[in-house]
Amino acid sequence: MNILDIIAKKRDNKELSKEEIDFFVKEYVKGNIADYQASALVMAIYINRMSEQEITDLTISMANSGDVLDLSDLGDVIDKHSTGGVGDKITLILMPIIASLGIPVAKMSGRGLGTTGGTIDKLESIPGYRTDLDIESFKKNVKEIGISLIGQTLNLAPADKKLYALRDTINCIDSIPLIASSIMSKKIAAGANKIVIDVTCGNGAFMNNRLKALQLAVCMKRIGDLSGKETKCIVTDMNQPMGRAVGNALEIIEVIEVLKGNQEMTIDEKFTVTELGANMLVLAKKVNTIEEGKKKIIENLKNGKGFEKFVDLVKKQGGDISYLEDTSKFEKAKYIEPIIAEKDGTVRILNANTVGKLACYLGAGRIKKEDAINPRVGFIFEKKVGDKVKKGDILGYIHSDDKEKTEYVKKQKLFNIGYWRLYERSRYSRRYHI
Amino acid sequence: MNILDIIAKKRDNKELSKEEIDFFVKEYVKGNIADYQASALVMAIYINRMSEQEITDLTISMANSGDVLDLSDLGDVIDKHSTGGVGDKITLILMPIIASLGIPVAKMSGRGLGTTGGTIDKLESIPGYRTDLDIESFKKNVKEIGISLIGQTLNLAPADKKLYALRDTINCIDSIPLIASSIMSKKIAAGANKIVIDVTCGNGAFMNNRLKALQLAVCMKRIGDLSGKETKCIVTDMNQPMGRAVGNALEIIEVIEVLKGNQEMTIDEKFTVTELGANMLVLAKKVNTIEEGKKKIIENLKNGKGFEKFVDLVKKQGGDISYLEDTSKFEKAKYIEPIIAEKDGTVRILNANTVGKLACYLGAGRIKKEDAINPRVGFIFEKKVGDKVKKGDILGYIHSDDKEKTEYVKKQKLFNIGYWRLYERSRYSRRYHI
Repeated sequence: MNILDIIAKKRDNKELSKEEIDFFVKEYVKGNIADYQASALVMAIYINRMSEQEITDLTISMANSGDVLDLSDLGDVIDKHSTGGVGDKITLILMPIIASLGIPVAKMSGRGLGTTGGTIDKLESIPGYRTDLDIESFKKNVKEIGISLIGQTLNLAPADKKLYALRDTINCIDSIPLIASSIMSKKIAAGANKIVIDVTCGNGAFMNNRLKALQLAVCMKRIGDLSGKETKCIVTDMNQPMGRAVGNALEIIEVIEVLKGNQEMTIDEKFTVTELGANMLVLAKKVNTIEEGKKKIIENLKNGKGFEKFVDLVKKQGGDISYLEDTSKFEKAKYIEPIIAEKDGTVRILNANTVGKLACYLGAGRIKKEDAINPRVGFIFEKKVGDKVKKGDILGYIHSDDKEKTEYVKKQKLFNIGYWRLYERSRYSRRYHI
Repeated sequence: MNILDIIAKKRDNKELSKEEIDFFVKEYVKGNIADYQASALVMAIYINRMSEQEITDLTISMANSGDVLDLSDLGDVIDKHSTGGVGDKITLILMPIIASLGIPVAKMSGRGLGTTGGTIDKLESIPGYRTDLDIESFKKNVKEIGISLIGQTLNLAPADKKLYALRDTINCIDSIPLIASSIMSKKIAAGANKIVIDVTCGNGAFMNNRLKALQLAVCMKRIGDLSGKETKCIVTDMNQPMGRAVGNALEIIEVIEVLKGNQEMTIDEKFTVTELGANMLVLAKKVNTIEEGKKKIIENLKNGKGFEKFVDLVKKQGGDISYLEDTSKFEKAKYIEPIIAEKDGTVRILNANTVGKLACYLGAGRIKKEDAINPRVGFIFEKKVGDKVKKGDILGYIHSDDKEKTEYVKKQKLFNIGYWRLYERSRYSRRYHI
């Protein structure tokens, strides 16, 4: 077997065998296949695409290219993944509720790059919270309290890491089979048994085209099923930021207040939390129908069991739970400036992409990997798409540590207010289960 | 302009502009574009192909990437090129005849790699012949005697050299647009005004599929026409070696004897010499029709003017013309062994590929660039495809300097003798003008 024959096969639009895909992944990670050869193959895959079996084989090969976490002793672990978005705090609201319903939660999350922080960055805004537990403590915590959320301490799917970096330099990121196998390889290496994926779609997400998001969802579901990891995908809207807060500590405060019952979830938040949660419960065979699952999720939110589990989690991982008891203890940004409606009407657009970039500009996210994050800064939105407003209403607040940056952000048009048309409501409410 | 956008454009099967192609070629030669980016682009070109305009733009960009020879002061220089074959000595027979008909011949030729030597290797078997003239002497000779044949002393189309080496490592050699622009870029850089190309096709040639040879011919003709260099292509057969001799000095002897009129050209030789020659005469406007051109070529062969010109050429470039007067002066190989027919019948196959490889094995060609060539060794064929033979007839001779190698070659089956079928004759006689 040699790389030239493999390249020629894909070049000529033929199907690669599992052995050929394994050979490529292994030898590429070892450095026996040159980048220019890998990039020729990637381009051929991009243009000629891959069959479902090929994508699955590639996924499994990449999953096996580094550490593979064995969580089989913890029971039926169901992983949750999101393709990312602005203000996406669903993991932090949902997973404690899931744990409180008796499903073990053993989740590794990532840090953010480009827009706001990732789940791990958000958790770190709770003083003392340790995200760097070793695997033994991680599993021990899950056994003892049913939940642990840590950072990626393992070398998961290094082949994916290397290929992703290469794809970036040859403009081949945007390929459904390659995105799908990239995501799924990391999930499989992280020990998931069953997987629920939130495929975000909109200007604040990686996928901004609904058709492509659906294709990605279908593709990941097939990979999951073919590799024996039952998978559900929900396509959700990411044209406006998720929930009310954008920014690390601000989002943690929102999570706490929601779990404590002090604050209602926004419509999009409620949809995503209940849909994903219900699907997890169905996968775990805790309930028979999605409707039943949704009820259970809302029940354990309302009765405070979700919050109790969150307190357990934070305590177990060294976090200061007095911040959970009293969220006013979180340090505030220096400047908190309102955003004021300039006219009457309905919020038609609250651009997630713009919000994400501005949050990053304020210091809530990283541009480069080694940048530090400012947990205090970001946005709180009082109004969201579809809400009626009057001139002079407060639409939201800018939280900033820098006077000049505050002024700059105030000048940006985050909201578009006008007449709400029927098709727009449908655009923001259409969602798909795959 | 950046390489990522260019890659994406070709990836998505869009047409690249002249500026984009120029940018790629220039920056790649400078080393500002990485090999893995170039290889992604090459794969996209391979799969999605290129329009005629794109191929032409690529050709001209590559031609301009290094030295460009200006032959405009020599008049209407018509270049002749062959895509290569076993025993291909057409340049050496034809070009002196062309020069004797008043068309300036200023030709740079290559060395051989893989099978037998190139035109330059063959010329060097004449003691004293200098192939390394500088450009001034080269042009001076053309002005004085109408002909000069030298090696490639210039840095012609370095972009092509770099891209060709890359294509080799990613299995993308076999692409019609890329082969066509590779050949044409070197011809254009070498200063040709009009070009006649012998597109060889068969097991002893680079193209062994007639359809692909035709596509290549059409593609090169279009590039030539679009870049203002009128081009003619003739697709010729290379399933058996060209003419009688294979091997450097052996081929030179054949050339001399043919030019002196002591030996008839074989059918394939006569076809190729007259077809290419007549097309050159038409391009040079020396005659109006191909038929008229063929007559002129045969005339100047028969009347000895071609030979006179060859003598002028060799003398002018320092060669010992006593070898031309008496070819028995050429040093002989140690062992000259006949190949004997084992049965009655007709020669059905004389495999050019096998002959080429065995000639190389005997020492007539290089495996690596730095290998030396033994001018004495090779083959002389007395019988060719379509000839009737009787058991015991001599089919040809092995010329070798090594006893063991002779024995090995004797055991190989070069000839297939059997019943001649009608379709086989047609296979060897079908030829195309493009």
